[in-house]
Amino acid sequence: MKELRERIEREGKNLGNGILKVDSFINHQVDPLLMDICGREFARRFAHLGATKVLTAEISGIAPALTTALHLGIPVVYARKHKPITMPDQVYLTLAPSHTKGRMVELIVSPEYLANGERVLIIDDFLATGATILGLVRLAEAAGSSVVGIGALIEKSFEGGRKALEPLGVPIESLVCITNMDHGQIVFADR
Amino acid sequence: MKELRERIEREGKNLGNGILKVDSFINHQVDPLLMDICGREFARRFAHLGATKVLTAEISGIAPALTTALHLGIPVVYARKHKPITMPDQVYLTLAPSHTKGRMVELIVSPEYLANGERVLIIDDFLATGATILGLVRLAEAAGSSVVGIGALIEKSFEGGRKALEPLGVPIESLVCITNMDHGQIVFADR
Repeated sequence: MKELRERIEREGKNLGNGILKVDSFINHQVDPLLMDICGREFARRFAHLGATKVLTAEISGIAPALTTALHLGIPVVYARKHKPITMPDQVYLTLAPSHTKGRMVELIVSPEYLANGERVLIIDDFLATGATILGLVRLAEAAGSSVVGIGALIEKSFEGGRKALEPLGVPIESLVCITNMDHGQIVFADR
Repeated sequence: MKELRERIEREGKNLGNGILKVDSFINHQVDPLLMDICGREFARRFAHLGATKVLTAEISGIAPALTTALHLGIPVVYARKHKPITMPDQVYLTLAPSHTKGRMVELIVSPEYLANGERVLIIDDFLATGATILGLVRLAEAAGSSVVGIGALIEKSFEGGRKALEPLGVPIESLVCITNMDHGQIVFADR
């Protein structure tokens, strides 16, 4: 998507080790108008799937997931990384490695909001190794829901996440695809 | 605000000790249409202040802050509770007690996104004791910004937050005000 790609070209920073800093418009400061455009685009691409719920992981997935859910007119659930006291004792919990934290984090969803038979659209900020998204897939499957689509704002294709997710057999959409971040560069896929 | 009050009447749960569970539409599952209505209402009430940035705290503040910022057409910054590796070494950091965690949490903002002279509108999900919001005020002041308004979806007036914030001399708006949660009840202010 043109708007997102141009913003990354202008403000994104390659910090090395595959870390792309987009803190000025996605991960710390958020540009709500850009997120709204991205959410509308995800809604357009996934409109035919009949999703009943958007699922994401706190924290950085919340903004694009919220605007996508807004344009689809369905609720969004964000998996928590720490169980709040308002959550029941019995939950769905899985572990996923955090790229930016260098350790495993918990992903927790309450059975109250992810039910048997739901059609789940997963939205996140990044598709890198696919580990976080696979964690969300496990939570959805534990609940008896089916994942019907996966969307990420930014795909880093050189980390292999798409290959890890393809066996699920659902549409995978990224709005911008980066193919190479070696030697300080940010190379976009030609599309 | 009628829509939010009705939703709390229908789905909110008084868990005791002043804890209001609104996990089905704000804190875990989010109703994006309701958040959009709330954001539009905040934008209407605060339109005259000339805010240049919305400031909130992760995680539950993000949804209402994002929709408010969307309707005001300005960026939103969410204070992080853990410093990500993309953040510079020099940051604004303060401590605030977490009501639902029973301990102090860090609130961290990068100087890159909170600058001298900004006019900051603080938006959060709850106004209870005011401790989190006062933490955000300290961050804004440390950056040389001025806080021009404070908005919360739900005020629990019996916890005294409004009194703690009034010395700031800025407009304080809550969309729903709860005056009493003793004995399992949820009593709304008559407005």
